[in-house]
Amino acid sequence: MSDDTVRMTLAEVRDYARATLARVGLSPAHVAAVAETMVAGERDGCGSHGLYRLLVAAHSVAVGVVVPDAVPVLSRPKPALVRVDGGGGFAQLAFDTGRPALVEAARAHGIAALALNNVVHFAALWPEVEALVADGLVALAFTPSHAWVAPAGGTTPLFGTNPIAFGWPRPGGTPFVFDFATSMVARGEIELHRRAGKRVPTDWGHAPDGSETDDPAAVLAGAMRTFGEHKGSALATMVELIAGPLIGDLTSAESLAADAGRKGSPIGGELILAIDPAGFLGAAAADHLARAEAVFAGIEAQGARLPGSRRHAARIVSQRDGVAIARQLIADIDAVTKDIA
Amino acid sequence: MSDDTVRMTLAEVRDYARATLARVGLSPAHVAAVAETMVAGERDGCGSHGLYRLLVAAHSVAVGVVVPDAVPVLSRPKPALVRVDGGGGFAQLAFDTGRPALVEAARAHGIAALALNNVVHFAALWPEVEALVADGLVALAFTPSHAWVAPAGGTTPLFGTNPIAFGWPRPGGTPFVFDFATSMVARGEIELHRRAGKRVPTDWGHAPDGSETDDPAAVLAGAMRTFGEHKGSALATMVELIAGPLIGDLTSAESLAADAGRKGSPIGGELILAIDPAGFLGAAAADHLARAEAVFAGIEAQGARLPGSRRHAARIVSQRDGVAIARQLIADIDAVTKDIA
Repeated sequence: MSDDTVRMTLAEVRDYARATLARVGLSPAHVAAVAETMVAGERDGCGSHGLYRLLVAAHSVAVGVVVPDAVPVLSRPKPALVRVDGGGGFAQLAFDTGRPALVEAARAHGIAALALNNVVHFAALWPEVEALVADGLVALAFTPSHAWVAPAGGTTPLFGTNPIAFGWPRPGGTPFVFDFATSMVARGEIELHRRAGKRVPTDWGHAPDGSETDDPAAVLAGAMRTFGEHKGSALATMVELIAGPLIGDLTSAESLAADAGRKGSPIGGELILAIDPAGFLGAAAADHLARAEAVFAGIEAQGARLPGSRRHAARIVSQRDGVAIARQLIADIDAVTKDIA
Repeated sequence: MSDDTVRMTLAEVRDYARATLARVGLSPAHVAAVAETMVAGERDGCGSHGLYRLLVAAHSVAVGVVVPDAVPVLSRPKPALVRVDGGGGFAQLAFDTGRPALVEAARAHGIAALALNNVVHFAALWPEVEALVADGLVALAFTPSHAWVAPAGGTTPLFGTNPIAFGWPRPGGTPFVFDFATSMVARGEIELHRRAGKRVPTDWGHAPDGSETDDPAAVLAGAMRTFGEHKGSALATMVELIAGPLIGDLTSAESLAADAGRKGSPIGGELILAIDPAGFLGAAAADHLARAEAVFAGIEAQGARLPGSRRHAARIVSQRDGVAIARQLIADIDAVTKDIA
């Protein structure tokens, strides 16, 4: 470990995140829910979703984008649908509020959907699908963000980075989980290139005038591209629709408009689907889940990597040894949140 | 119209398809169901899913891959789940058998899923999502195929072309529908290049020894690639899982093994999800569907194309003017199916 970092156990990460979020003004229920996603980020080696996000959370509180003490309200509009109105708070508590009902509905009906409405997003989707996979369910999650991404064939921002996450339970092992933006890369990746003075590949985005560019600042001011050309663009459109109007919530363009230049986290909805393997298969579910292992074995046997495998490998190490946190990050967080308090 | 083609009305296409399928030996119920997807293919300007598929259907019957008179059996394992055992027949009749129950379940529970099991696939998925969209539902469909596609980071076939289709109802207009393979291109596209003596881009696939190649025959003998690198590969994996083991049916590797070199159409399952916009939204559904139109307007305003728009434009013309069918194709179909009869 270098002098630039401090080693913390995951319990210490949790305590630090909780104390900071409380100082920022979140209610105790939000403090607990939000801190867990940061612990999960650090635990899995995803620094960009770890304590760094305390800065993002503090900013969203400071500029008034998020309601720090919102109380989520659950409703059941249909037998297999669960809806949680987050009241303008962070999404994590809304998810925790809806999760037991979603699990119950998926088991009772075979498939169920949870809509989170009126929430502020600043975390990855994989903690949510992993939570459902831990209950033995197959899960999918979708959310729009801010309108930063152009459709294939255009150069004007319309879509968010619109991630799709999927989780599949594996017997006796870590789950199969992926979570990716339908943009070519995460927006933070472009920002990192800008800070480092590095150029970006020309297929990452468009300059504000629509021209080709390798300048990260021009892409940030212009438009990002979707991954996978027209296919990724079609998926980004789907996410806009099913996690926006289908659940009565904002599109990425509406979220950015609602932000009104405050540079807060995206506001809107999230759609989560859960399917119970025992629904179609009954007692044979375990046999068929075991058969699915051949797919994973077929991927790994040829040297290809399973999505999520780096995270799950990091998890084993960090649960044993703790994690290294940059001293500068702690200093930055302390400085920003002392200003707030 | 050139002398190489004959003009047919869509009614004539239907009659020709039905007569041919009957001669091939399909039972009347399969004749009617399968013919409609070929009519839809010709109507929408997708020749590769039109009458050409009579050759494919005839081959699958001739080599014994498909049960030509299978009687699908419907069951309801959970309130929001519908299952149809296709009995080894073509998928279309199984879908038609399950569709009313899926629509009813989606309306009653808000979301529902239909698993087609033990069916033979040789058509696109968009006719199925469009049928559900016509009932006012949002629909998703997935199916594995034969193991022709390598995961990102590998060069050995494991996945099928594993398409994903999505449909969204639009007020007063044609639906928003996409349907794409998670492979870089359709397998038929590589075959067309081979027949034409043309090279293919090197990101379409791998040679049998894993090396880079622009030879379509080498890709067909080796492995195709997924679209969108690791993200497309993750989606292909998801399709293998949710339309395979999750519904108790074959993976693409198992389908290819079951084919045993007969070069028949893929055998296995299909998963279809349906969500009722009125489920989350009640009477406000129409307002939110109207709001979704801003997404489509935002795509088209910048000159980008909506998926499915070419098909829907072709549909207007072909419903009015009929379609041009290659005389050689008719001659080939007649020759092959006379051999069978």
